Amino acid sequence: MIKFEEAFEIVQNAAKPTLKTERVHFIDSLGRILAEDIFSDINMPPFNKSAMDGFACRKQDIGNELKIIEVLPAGSLPKNKVGENQCVKIMTGAIIPEGADCVIMVEYTDEMPDGNVQYTKKSTNSNICYFAEDIKKGELVLSKGLEIKPQHIAVMASVGTVRPLVSLKPRVGIISTGDELVEPERTPSLSQIRNSNGPQLAAQVVRSGAIPNYYGITEDTREATFSVITQALNENDVILLTGGVSMGAFDFVPEIMIKTGVDIKFRSIAVQPGKPTIFGTFQNNTYIFGLPGNPVSSYTQFELLVRPLISRLMNNEPLHKTIKIPMGAEYTRRKSERKSFIPITISADGKVYPVEYHGSAHIHSYVLADGIVSIEIGKEKLEIGELVDVRQI
Amino acid sequence: MIKFEEAFEIVQNAAKPTLKTERVHFIDSLGRILAEDIFSDINMPPFNKSAMDGFACRKQDIGNELKIIEVLPAGSLPKNKVGENQCVKIMTGAIIPEGADCVIMVEYTDEMPDGNVQYTKKSTNSNICYFAEDIKKGELVLSKGLEIKPQHIAVMASVGTVRPLVSLKPRVGIISTGDELVEPERTPSLSQIRNSNGPQLAAQVVRSGAIPNYYGITEDTREATFSVITQALNENDVILLTGGVSMGAFDFVPEIMIKTGVDIKFRSIAVQPGKPTIFGTFQNNTYIFGLPGNPVSSYTQFELLVRPLISRLMNNEPLHKTIKIPMGAEYTRRKSERKSFIPITISADGKVYPVEYHGSAHIHSYVLADGIVSIEIGKEKLEIGELVDVRQI
Repeated sequence: MIKFEEAFEIVQNAAKPTLKTERVHFIDSLGRILAEDIFSDINMPPFNKSAMDGFACRKQDIGNELKIIEVLPAGSLPKNKVGENQCVKIMTGAIIPEGADCVIMVEYTDEMPDGNVQYTKKSTNSNICYFAEDIKKGELVLSKGLEIKPQHIAVMASVGTVRPLVSLKPRVGIISTGDELVEPERTPSLSQIRNSNGPQLAAQVVRSGAIPNYYGITEDTREATFSVITQALNENDVILLTGGVSMGAFDFVPEIMIKTGVDIKFRSIAVQPGKPTIFGTFQNNTYIFGLPGNPVSSYTQFELLVRPLISRLMNNEPLHKTIKIPMGAEYTRRKSERKSFIPITISADGKVYPVEYHGSAHIHSYVLADGIVSIEIGKEKLEIGELVDVRQI
Repeated sequence: MIKFEEAFEIVQNAAKPTLKTERVHFIDSLGRILAEDIFSDINMPPFNKSAMDGFACRKQDIGNELKIIEVLPAGSLPKNKVGENQCVKIMTGAIIPEGADCVIMVEYTDEMPDGNVQYTKKSTNSNICYFAEDIKKGELVLSKGLEIKPQHIAVMASVGTVRPLVSLKPRVGIISTGDELVEPERTPSLSQIRNSNGPQLAAQVVRSGAIPNYYGITEDTREATFSVITQALNENDVILLTGGVSMGAFDFVPEIMIKTGVDIKFRSIAVQPGKPTIFGTFQNNTYIFGLPGNPVSSYTQFELLVRPLISRLMNNEPLHKTIKIPMGAEYTRRKSERKSFIPITISADGKVYPVEYHGSAHIHSYVLADGIVSIEIGKEKLEIGELVDVRQI
């Protein structure tokens, strides 16, 4: 049994970002991981640009009546140069005409009977966005490894990157084991329960930016388990097995993994929930987890270990962040030989409260949870006001 | 000009959740808004269930050698009753046999030469998950209005809800205006810029759980604007226009909106960025925003006003949460007559830092931002250590 931090390092160090890449239309790139650096092909602004609707003129003339010599919408080229006591009626986004060094805001001007303009204030900002002040041509605007959000799509649009290179989504095989399981469509008999783990993992895989590949419920025999693992190793980048990894007589998953050629890196972690978590690699480019059969355990270990592995495979930097928030209530536990992960809510006034939690089969504890908080080995209590790292879920 | 809080209330009160619903397979329901309450069709656990791999026996016998009378995998029905100094070898998830009141963990047992089992500790927990302790048959497990996450998919799986009712995704029309705009595929001439607003809004719409419907760049004429708004009002639940809403001579969008039958509710908000934001309704079931042409302004007002409207239309409760985090650096501004929204990052030690920000055309300020923080009217400074509401983006 190893510590969580060791397990995390082992998984991260094993992960080789050998995934292929593809080009997609930038509109379809939301949530993908950028696989190239993007540079600007233009200066921004591309010219001295009016930041306001108003009148472009010379600062030294703003006390005087100004004659309108041109009306300039955005998108047009100015035809005239602005001279003494002259102005150009200008729209936001239009090019500042030669000669002008400021734009007086339309809100603070009076139109005179002769059609001239009089500014009603004593001073003005320039109200000009200057050539290239935001971005210079050739400048790096987006870095490789970024998870693409709407604001990055705006940047790609502005620099004309219409088909960015992104990492392929890893394929993640999901294999459920356990003869007590039936698929959710069926009504379980007395000794059965529905398979909630498989669908939950599939949704977690989607949320991580990868593609789930479900293999159904495998019969609890050595032959069926060997066969499905062998097939899945050939078809996926990551494989998640649930169940069959603890100490029961029918829990032969580790033995079968080895038989299929998997190099097992660890067999259990000093965490709660999720102690009997197995991790191994196959031919240095396929990663396999044996996750506990309990839905809270498998949910938690997916978020803690599998999701960061998927991010690493796609070269995603930085990894999923945690946020420090103070506890709003005390949390105590009797045993402290493992690192615990507990579901919590965040209150409107920004405090962390543990939710009612009966243990690793209690999926309902996560229905209203906003995040997961950890408590270290040897620590029995989280105090009110103590800052804790919240992993949002 | 109204305050932001008033604008928010006007939009929220105008929003009528009249959207239709549909049933989807629960595996495909990630991120959708649940449109029905879901009740459990079973008790959970459905029987007294072993929480461990071990031996089911009577607590009063744990000091004695126990005779194994049966091996019981999960998914099987027990055949025997456990009597004095007897036990059943039991797997996690299996039914506790009659007579037994605890499970001793396999880790703390010795196998004796005669095949009997001897427990090596003095006491034991019951290690039983009792019938219906987590959920009772008929109990409410998921509430209408929830945004569906992986853990909710697990709950649906466990109670057999394979085709949940969800809200239809609102259709959101996006109309870009501005003769200075060209689509990102093109290289802009001197007076032009690429349209970054349209693609950014489309991505924001997707992230909000709605369907974007892009109308391209509309020519800056009254006729073209009237025509595209009229068409869009017939085809969408929400319409977003960008540009053409400030005080320039070509900014006739409000006038045209009224002509198409839109009831304008407000024309500007005391915020920065995003002051010239218009909101109106059409026939009480269509909502139209005129957003500023600057990409930071439109981005921000989408997150502040449009996203909560979309949530409301889908009956999503609770709305997008903010989190209270302390400032790690001071922030000051010269003018305070408007409520400001500024991009920030959250540091590893849980503090908020403003990012460099040149104003509403500076989309690059948002590239590395983790969130948006507001500063109230009349307030010129955010102090170090001051708790601020962070809207994560």
